[in-house]
Amino acid sequence: MNSFGHKFKFSSFGESHGKALGCIVDGVPAGISIDETFIQSEMDRRKPGQNAYATARKEGDKVEILSGVFEGVTTGTSIAMVIFNENQKSKDYSNIKDLFRPGHADFTYWNKYGVRDYRGGGRSSARETAARVAAGAIAKLLLKEIGVVVQSGICSIDAVEANSYDFKHALTSEIFALDAKVEQKQKDAILTAKNEHNSVGGVALVNVKNAPVGLGEPVYFKLDAQIANAMMSINAVKAVEIGDGIESAKVKGFDNNDQIRLDGFKSNHSGGILGGISNGDDINVKVHFKATPSVFIKQETIDTQDNEVTCELKGRHDPCVAVRGSVVAESMMALVLADMAILNMGAKVEHLKKIYN
Amino acid sequence: MNSFGHKFKFSSFGESHGKALGCIVDGVPAGISIDETFIQSEMDRRKPGQNAYATARKEGDKVEILSGVFEGVTTGTSIAMVIFNENQKSKDYSNIKDLFRPGHADFTYWNKYGVRDYRGGGRSSARETAARVAAGAIAKLLLKEIGVVVQSGICSIDAVEANSYDFKHALTSEIFALDAKVEQKQKDAILTAKNEHNSVGGVALVNVKNAPVGLGEPVYFKLDAQIANAMMSINAVKAVEIGDGIESAKVKGFDNNDQIRLDGFKSNHSGGILGGISNGDDINVKVHFKATPSVFIKQETIDTQDNEVTCELKGRHDPCVAVRGSVVAESMMALVLADMAILNMGAKVEHLKKIYN
Amino acid sequence: MNSFGHKFKFSSFGESHGKALGCIVDGVPAGISIDETFIQSEMDRRKPGQNAYATARKEGDKVEILSGVFEGVTTGTSIAMVIFNENQKSKDYSNIKDLFRPGHADFTYWNKYGVRDYRGGGRSSARETAARVAAGAIAKLLLKEIGVVVQSGICSIDAVEANSYDFKHALTSEIFALDAKVEQKQKDAILTAKNEHNSVGGVALVNVKNAPVGLGEPVYFKLDAQIANAMMSINAVKAVEIGDGIESAKVKGFDNNDQIRLDGFKSNHSGGILGGISNGDDINVKVHFKATPSVFIKQETIDTQDNEVTCELKGRHDPCVAVRGSVVAESMMALVLADMAILNMGAKVEHLKKIYN
Amino acid sequence: MNSFGHKFKFSSFGESHGKALGCIVDGVPAGISIDETFIQSEMDRRKPGQNAYATARKEGDKVEILSGVFEGVTTGTSIAMVIFNENQKSKDYSNIKDLFRPGHADFTYWNKYGVRDYRGGGRSSARETAARVAAGAIAKLLLKEIGVVVQSGICSIDAVEANSYDFKHALTSEIFALDAKVEQKQKDAILTAKNEHNSVGGVALVNVKNAPVGLGEPVYFKLDAQIANAMMSINAVKAVEIGDGIESAKVKGFDNNDQIRLDGFKSNHSGGILGGISNGDDINVKVHFKATPSVFIKQETIDTQDNEVTCELKGRHDPCVAVRGSVVAESMMALVLADMAILNMGAKVEHLKKIYN
Repeated sequence: MNSFGHKFKFSSFGESHGKALGCIVDGVPAGISIDETFIQSEMDRRKPGQNAYATARKEGDKVEILSGVFEGVTTGTSIAMVIFNENQKSKDYSNIKDLFRPGHADFTYWNKYGVRDYRGGGRSSARETAARVAAGAIAKLLLKEIGVVVQSGICSIDAVEANSYDFKHALTSEIFALDAKVEQKQKDAILTAKNEHNSVGGVALVNVKNAPVGLGEPVYFKLDAQIANAMMSINAVKAVEIGDGIESAKVKGFDNNDQIRLDGFKSNHSGGILGGISNGDDINVKVHFKATPSVFIKQETIDTQDNEVTCELKGRHDPCVAVRGSVVAESMMALVLADMAILNMGAKVEHLKKIYN
Repeated sequence: MNSFGHKFKFSSFGESHGKALGCIVDGVPAGISIDETFIQSEMDRRKPGQNAYATARKEGDKVEILSGVFEGVTTGTSIAMVIFNENQKSKDYSNIKDLFRPGHADFTYWNKYGVRDYRGGGRSSARETAARVAAGAIAKLLLKEIGVVVQSGICSIDAVEANSYDFKHALTSEIFALDAKVEQKQKDAILTAKNEHNSVGGVALVNVKNAPVGLGEPVYFKLDAQIANAMMSINAVKAVEIGDGIESAKVKGFDNNDQIRLDGFKSNHSGGILGGISNGDDINVKVHFKATPSVFIKQETIDTQDNEVTCELKGRHDPCVAVRGSVVAESMMALVLADMAILNMGAKVEHLKKIYN
Repeated sequence: MNSFGHKFKFSSFGESHGKALGCIVDGVPAGISIDETFIQSEMDRRKPGQNAYATARKEGDKVEILSGVFEGVTTGTSIAMVIFNENQKSKDYSNIKDLFRPGHADFTYWNKYGVRDYRGGGRSSARETAARVAAGAIAKLLLKEIGVVVQSGICSIDAVEANSYDFKHALTSEIFALDAKVEQKQKDAILTAKNEHNSVGGVALVNVKNAPVGLGEPVYFKLDAQIANAMMSINAVKAVEIGDGIESAKVKGFDNNDQIRLDGFKSNHSGGILGGISNGDDINVKVHFKATPSVFIKQETIDTQDNEVTCELKGRHDPCVAVRGSVVAESMMALVLADMAILNMGAKVEHLKKIYN
Repeated sequence: MNSFGHKFKFSSFGESHGKALGCIVDGVPAGISIDETFIQSEMDRRKPGQNAYATARKEGDKVEILSGVFEGVTTGTSIAMVIFNENQKSKDYSNIKDLFRPGHADFTYWNKYGVRDYRGGGRSSARETAARVAAGAIAKLLLKEIGVVVQSGICSIDAVEANSYDFKHALTSEIFALDAKVEQKQKDAILTAKNEHNSVGGVALVNVKNAPVGLGEPVYFKLDAQIANAMMSINAVKAVEIGDGIESAKVKGFDNNDQIRLDGFKSNHSGGILGGISNGDDINVKVHFKATPSVFIKQETIDTQDNEVTCELKGRHDPCVAVRGSVVAESMMALVLADMAILNMGAKVEHLKKIYN
């Protein structure tokens, strides 16, 4: 179950402190130019070790393409990408080897599998998301061919909320802040928590421009359902909102409806999705990340031998996973859209006639 | 794409005003006693036309099992269930035949498919969810075999929020209210909106007791991701929260972590899921429904011939889809858990040895 | 696992002596005209009880469409079809209720599921194939839109082999014989076996004309692999050959290669498939059916209580399942091709540009 | 579509002359001991360049495990394996770059994708099967845990057929011959063809011992259908027979039925599969490989610019792909059985009770 998507899909592998991570992207149409510099730049946005707001773990996150691209162009065959872990030298794990860190997957992995790669969380580590970003970069190159743009940023950190969204600013912000005016306050919230050996949560906003009308497959593979699935599969995500989201449940029907004129919808409460299908308007999705469970404060837990113990973590961790998580959320959105764009082909018989007649 | 689930799964069919709705449930283990009275009672909970808080459309919603059950027991083959529409006599649809009702799927279906069953929304109608409840009842009978209980209720209507959750009370409440103390206020909100030809939103809470540890498949089929997908695929749902959900993004890591003792977790902020895998604690999910888009107030829209027109709906509609939606959400949860319970078999080699050696 | 196909797919249900059989066809493009008379005519070709060469069981096999078609045209939603069993009145099954008929699935179903609908073989009966033919008729209507023709006939009965293939003759032959010259001999073989309370095997040939180049998805969903899967899933099939099949393994490489000229391939040893992808030439597949296991001769077997017993069957059975099986094989071919035609959309980025730009 | 299997599955990548080949094996139960020496020994059986009967291309085919195994044991996460191509230095391909080699996938890949990695056939090369053998080795280690044994050998080369089957002999034979008595004649057939710049076909037999009763999912994922799919997906395979296969279509029903006694079936015409489900007897499958299309004799063809040209191949090729193909067929059988063993879990409610109660 390490695959995501239906026709445009990827399968991934790799543990936090294993030899390598990577993925196979399948269902990529032939004829797409592959810009390796772009793929690496996407990796670099998510890369750890770049500033005080992220984990100090240093990883080059160099992607190598092993297949599926010939003379710079996709061939329609599966594209394998590998990222060798540089920083996997195992330190001493004896202090956490047998105990279950609160808020982490240690307890559940142990009970489900009966065996566990305890080094840095193994497969359950957010390090796995590097593979998602690599696959997402391929998805973005596909979407580019049909003019679709995906972007993201941070709209809230520790309940400090953005009042306006500037995706260009986010690109240059160390914490991908959407609102320059609250950015410093958001940064302060991160550093304060870090200094207190604690961590903070945050909210990412993912936005899509120029999505064609018609993406999303009723009734169980609706675009919003696929997006919710994608986002909730990211480490630490606890809530997903489409368009006005939670607010939609609080207003009256008349106020929530987006009335229609010939030049488009008069509002966008729906977040660009009606009946599970894109309506051509901007797609907006909010992704809520809990605070990193790795805090350096004493906590109670048990171990694999059923002893009640105390857990004191050490090491390097993101004080706010939402920041780098926003890049992952953006990648997942690109992956969903690329899949849905291909799945939608064949929705009407005219599509078949365009291809075959 | 009218199928849901991976191993325990169902495929459904049917339009709001077509001949019939129904489903095929596949992957049901042999040997489960099928209590048809129970299945019908589940249908009856979702059934329209029962009180002032729901649509006046009358449907018996009688389920007939066509296959897969022999002498009262499942045989391991696919179970087909059909519900004939009694109330499908088509009234005059000429007023909405060619226009796109704001907030509905009319616009997107038309653009995606180029053809549309406009009677009552066709396939995009929430009437489709009858099939989900029928399939969900089979899922519940499976879960009963391993002691898992799924229940639900309404925690908020039009921002009137429950302060406590009593799932037993919800069973007897006309609006499935979880908190008897705010129930009347919630009812009033519905009726007020109804009288103003408007509609209200609401929030359902789904709760699971006795889920075994280990359900959920990392990393892209996590239990929470599957639940988010399931819930967001329900008509009118715009947000999904797992456990503390949005609140999780506002508190510090230390406060959000559920510390562990030998007798269980000391808190349940996570909503019973860690690393995408059930941890044995209660699973709690909040599902936010927008207000019914069918309001009887004049709205602006366009039609299939690109005319700007005014839309004035008439007819019968739920003034608050969240109410009956909570039953659907509960059914979807049962379907996800049944699927995950079967998918988890084979997680460790001991499972194989128990079955084959 | 009662679903077939990937994007154009169907799920089926129903037992030999249950209330009804049927299917849900999913992934059907919108805008296809549905000719119900054609669908019924396909059913009638497979229908039992029509002559001395088939089982005497009488079934009208009337198909009713329950959804997915509006005003004679597909809407892109799932199409449900149901066939009520007319002849399901259960006779006395006490003689076979507890024993395992040799050559049948009784033994394996009992051991796999621990429970069994013993009436006429339940789900394992070839009666299930009625649903395949209904779904196949939809597939044929789709293929008609892009000019693809699927046809079939019997090339061998009890080792009496056709020397030439006339698919038009097959349409009018009671045993779908491809070669009028050996038809009588083939019929005699069937009647002789029938009179001796025995049965015979046979071979069907399925032929496709005008398949577009490019159908089939390397490397594990090759067109020939999908066809083999489809054919081998039909009751009583024990071998599948593509093109020259078994003969291909006996000749030299040079002789087996199909050399190419501008006006096409100089020969068609490959059966229209190269590297798992259709090459535009005729697709030819041979499907080998074993003789019906239901023979009315005394046989040794055991029962569910582990007694060694003697089995003497009575009743109505096809003396040669290959005959009606050829219609099923033809339907399965149509289903594979419809699926592959849709899956192929997106093979190159030009396809996306045609649809989205 | 570069994935195979449903629950125990693998995805593969890699071209003949690309950087590397490999696969991700997913759905592997935790707790299986991974013997890397065994995996490599399986690779070595398929490895080219070992004797006069195979291609002279030299490849070490060293497998490296990148993930999913911790301290020698599977962890339940995805297992990535990579094989770097050593011999991928591109020679001069100018002579075949633009033309379609008869009998190869060149023509169809070009037409399907519009772009092609022409070096050694790219993804359509049988070199891809190295990944299948690596994945198959994992499947074998899983099957070992439940006592299932898969073996194979060559029963026919260029119509020189084995009269008896000795799987132990096959292990030591350079051409995996099952019958030592005809082995020399089979070898001669290969060398004669090779000397004439031609090639020969052959037939592999795959045998399974100790398969549990109950594997295979009716009705469209029958064990035999899955096997047929698996085998037909191997390069150059043109026919698949289960049990007596083609012979089954020639004998009478009574003679083909396997009567049953308490100590087992009295015969095994069925090849161990009844109604698509394993019956506990030996599973026997014959896989027919066409002669290698790469012959060094002048052939007529066309090129990508629609010129009629002459094709004269040079280089290194297997004079008989069936030989190494038998190892691949054996691997595919192991992969199908591992998948079916896991899918079967949940067939009856007793299975769930064994795991969860």
